[in-house]
Amino acid sequence: MRALWFRDGALCLLDQRELPGRRRVLRLRQAEEVAEAIRTMAVRGAPAIGVAAAYGMVLAQRGGRLGPDRAADLLGSTRPTAHDLFVGIETVRRAWADGEETLAAADAYRQEIVEECRRIGLAGAPRLRRASTVLTHCNAGALATVEWGTALAPIRVACERGARLTVLVDETRPLLQGSRLTAWELARDGIPHAIIVDNAAGYYLSRGEVDAVVVGADRIARNGDFANKIGTYEKAVVARENSVPFYVAAPWSTFDARCADGRSIPVEERGEEEVLSVRGVRLAPRASRARNPAFDVTPSRFVTEFFTPDGAVKPGGIARLLDRRARAG
Amino acid sequence: MRALWFRDGALCLLDQRELPGRRRVLRLRQAEEVAEAIRTMAVRGAPAIGVAAAYGMVLAQRGGRLGPDRAADLLGSTRPTAHDLFVGIETVRRAWADGEETLAAADAYRQEIVEECRRIGLAGAPRLRRASTVLTHCNAGALATVEWGTALAPIRVACERGARLTVLVDETRPLLQGSRLTAWELARDGIPHAIIVDNAAGYYLSRGEVDAVVVGADRIARNGDFANKIGTYEKAVVARENSVPFYVAAPWSTFDARCADGRSIPVEERGEEEVLSVRGVRLAPRASRARNPAFDVTPSRFVTEFFTPDGAVKPGGIARLLDRRARAG
Repeated sequence: MRALWFRDGALCLLDQRELPGRRRVLRLRQAEEVAEAIRTMAVRGAPAIGVAAAYGMVLAQRGGRLGPDRAADLLGSTRPTAHDLFVGIETVRRAWADGEETLAAADAYRQEIVEECRRIGLAGAPRLRRASTVLTHCNAGALATVEWGTALAPIRVACERGARLTVLVDETRPLLQGSRLTAWELARDGIPHAIIVDNAAGYYLSRGEVDAVVVGADRIARNGDFANKIGTYEKAVVARENSVPFYVAAPWSTFDARCADGRSIPVEERGEEEVLSVRGVRLAPRASRARNPAFDVTPSRFVTEFFTPDGAVKPGGIARLLDRRARAG
Repeated sequence: MRALWFRDGALCLLDQRELPGRRRVLRLRQAEEVAEAIRTMAVRGAPAIGVAAAYGMVLAQRGGRLGPDRAADLLGSTRPTAHDLFVGIETVRRAWADGEETLAAADAYRQEIVEECRRIGLAGAPRLRRASTVLTHCNAGALATVEWGTALAPIRVACERGARLTVLVDETRPLLQGSRLTAWELARDGIPHAIIVDNAAGYYLSRGEVDAVVVGADRIARNGDFANKIGTYEKAVVARENSVPFYVAAPWSTFDARCADGRSIPVEERGEEEVLSVRGVRLAPRASRARNPAFDVTPSRFVTEFFTPDGAVKPGGIARLLDRRARAG
């Protein structure tokens, strides 16, 4: 399953707002359209929006109206939290500024993300070998990452190797990435799963019915604090209260080597309509308002291990790994 | 505002499934209709279903087809968790079996619940006097309790006394009692509030933006463990992690003096359709299944105080108070 691809001069995206009811492919030929698709979450998931923005830079160059810096500003202003967005943009901006082939740079970036997710699956799968129930939050699957997924990659690999897993899927209000997207991916793969409301995760954790929690991330600081979809923090706190291991799976583009800790991660607040309605049906009284933070920040002390492309790493090992990668260039 | 009343031989209920979109009053003349209204949550909230069931017993006697024990079985089989249901039924069953006037017994039970909720408001309001933001989960307002509410009673009293409170309202999936019902009550009272998805409670707790959490309960054990709407346990764990006081407000009918601790509280699991759809709109893939526990059990160590009709009480003081009430008859 592929969430996005580039063909005939267009970035092609599965419109994630329409799933699972309708499989609609968007074909985008202008950088402005890519920016709008990211902002409105037709494409979402930190690694996937990084790849989409990389191709958005390619389309900006071809359009001829924007230079590399203005194109980077356009695409970078869409969503503030996911670090991958800025890595994807910067990768192609540098190629463009250096006079290199931008499509080749975007393709290489895409391929690197896919390959890293595959390795995340190999890194995490041994930890899930004996699990019978794994909880995940939001969608950190192929739709969020082009192929494989981050949190779903080790689950897929463990299942391929014969693990008998059931996945508890948090529905993930407000935009229901769990019940719409993660459930759709798991159903396609034939992996047993049950959707629960976000409120029910603690119930299952407290009864000893969850063996591990695996989530993705939008930005990971040097000290291991990380931002992810709103609600992740609650699951992490309740997992630790019940001594359930909590894993965070992410490619290197999600790690922000210049971010010391979670306090400096910007958290996007989105429009209140996402909370006041579901799929166009108004839920709340007309007089009521809502707040809608799209992410929260979980301190590193709640993380058992990060599943990275280079193996499973404890939070205390992140900074050293990032410095080693920086030195290696 | 009244959630239910008895008039012209009928139990009248605001149909809570239709709020806030539509204000529809159900007029029920048979015990079977009352049982169905409780099961389908046209009336919900532990104290309110206790009162509804008390009037259901009155209607059973008038119907003449059921004896007191069979009527009690009919109404008691609707929902297993809320203790109030069984107290309301037993109060009228005893009057019926003793040849007393059942309507007078149900009216007295109703009036006692209303009066206890008023006193809960007085007991809890001083704790919220200096709060600027209070979080609540589900609906523990007038709709859940006939008048006043349990969790909302101290909030109402504090606001009447001049506290400048904003209420953060968890939307409370799957049935959205927060965004539909609590928000509706607060909007009618002109109390400032903002609806958040259940996932966002931890975000505000972790940022120091919540001064207190107040919830209702469906059953409270002798040791202070308590059942309440699914998701309550997560909020309690995250509140303690952030040193935010956590209060549970309930009338005496919610306390189960024969229940030693939370392990013996039965938790209802409801149909999966409540999770897979919202207000008739299917969210999840056709192939996906769901789990739907309606309540969770929070251990007493997470409770700062119970707001009772006889004052604010720490969890360790509950058993002694229950024994004293039993001796007083």
